[in-house]
Amino acid sequence: MISVILLGTGNLANHLIDAFLQTKNVNLVQVYGRNAAALAKFKKTVDTTSNLAHLKEADIYIIAISDDAIAEFSEQLLVRDKLVVHTSGSVSIDAIKTSNRGVFYPLQTFTKDKPINFTAIPICIETKQKEDFNQLQQLASLLSNNVYTIDSNQRKYIHLAAVFTNNFVNYMYKIGNDICDENNIPFEILHPLILESATKIKNNKPVSIQTGPAVRNDKKTISNHLKLLKDDEKEIYNLLTQSIQNTYGKKL
Amino acid sequence: MISVILLGTGNLANHLIDAFLQTKNVNLVQVYGRNAAALAKFKKTVDTTSNLAHLKEADIYIIAISDDAIAEFSEQLLVRDKLVVHTSGSVSIDAIKTSNRGVFYPLQTFTKDKPINFTAIPICIETKQKEDFNQLQQLASLLSNNVYTIDSNQRKYIHLAAVFTNNFVNYMYKIGNDICDENNIPFEILHPLILESATKIKNNKPVSIQTGPAVRNDKKTISNHLKLLKDDEKEIYNLLTQSIQNTYGKKL
Repeated sequence: MISVILLGTGNLANHLIDAFLQTKNVNLVQVYGRNAAALAKFKKTVDTTSNLAHLKEADIYIIAISDDAIAEFSEQLLVRDKLVVHTSGSVSIDAIKTSNRGVFYPLQTFTKDKPINFTAIPICIETKQKEDFNQLQQLASLLSNNVYTIDSNQRKYIHLAAVFTNNFVNYMYKIGNDICDENNIPFEILHPLILESATKIKNNKPVSIQTGPAVRNDKKTISNHLKLLKDDEKEIYNLLTQSIQNTYGKKL
Repeated sequence: MISVILLGTGNLANHLIDAFLQTKNVNLVQVYGRNAAALAKFKKTVDTTSNLAHLKEADIYIIAISDDAIAEFSEQLLVRDKLVVHTSGSVSIDAIKTSNRGVFYPLQTFTKDKPINFTAIPICIETKQKEDFNQLQQLASLLSNNVYTIDSNQRKYIHLAAVFTNNFVNYMYKIGNDICDENNIPFEILHPLILESATKIKNNKPVSIQTGPAVRNDKKTISNHLKLLKDDEKEIYNLLTQSIQNTYGKKL
């Protein structure tokens, strides 16, 4: 049995509280939150406090608050000789100042009120002290089947890769949706294709399955497409086409 | 019962032949292919020919050959007073010269030897003559639950939207994969997040769920990310960040 105290009442904190309450061999001892109103909904199922001086004892203290607040908040924590971890993708392990520090980063987007199954979510863990590692790994493994040891430098690059594979990808969806809307095409018509592209990379390296006019060096289609696009879309089309052609050794 | 003759032996032709042979109320009368070797595998199950003069009679003739060859090929076809359709996303209906012409465009990527279930694949149909429309719609509905009436102009824009939502998206995956490889991070760690992004847009407009440092106007993270990127990746990161910020009224 691992005992845990969760610090935070935001989106991720909510999902973690639900998950811990449902997970065998995890004892969620207490939830801390600055905001009494946000705490209220947990009072029935778990001990809560808004006062850091009233924190109980636990094996692991999990900070699930906004990235910018982690460093300052961890200095106010009076916890010593216990493992304190944060849950951020983009903050270094050293934002926490005590020696028993670590990171417990679930790699997924969390939507409010949409229940999530942690089993398939990758959890990236890191600790400063070797003796803390086993404990954090044990906790992560109770929640997820996909636990990865990822140091702070790698985590930085995961976050960067996620900007491309998720934030920028969503923006490509947005442009596609705009093009459909402007031409009275239901965007849903592209969903099966979009899902196939996202699924295909499970068994194929993206570089080996690139398709489209750029990699085919189909100049006629590229020039037709450019005529149909608005200025800002055109600039993106041009740059990505050039970059694809550089990658695959084609010439415009 | 609708009778069909398929012209072509490529990737899409193969998938369509399989689908037609398995679909009730469709009679695949004949398969035409220039290449006798490519035809050989169908000989056991369907009549085949390499000679256009030997084409049989059918309700619908489906041209499934490369885009560039459609116009010239359709002129060699001696079929009159029967519906002739092509299967291309980017070729106008008018590439076919006979008056009973149309388009039967399945909107999906087809991988060789990977069986595909047509039921969920959107099929975009268009005809020149009203009387042909019902017949083509009937055929499409026998294969798929998602049949759309899409004219040649809309089809052009669907193809363009697919370049953004699939070709460029795959290139974003490729950059994410490169970043992972260079930092000894297994790319699979991003799969659940990628799949969630692709699934989310079924119930949300992409513009309403954009996340990431650009839309948050998180200058510190943006500047950190730019330091980690190589020149060509940096240029893409910069342009997409700017475009996102223009869209959402933020300033760099």
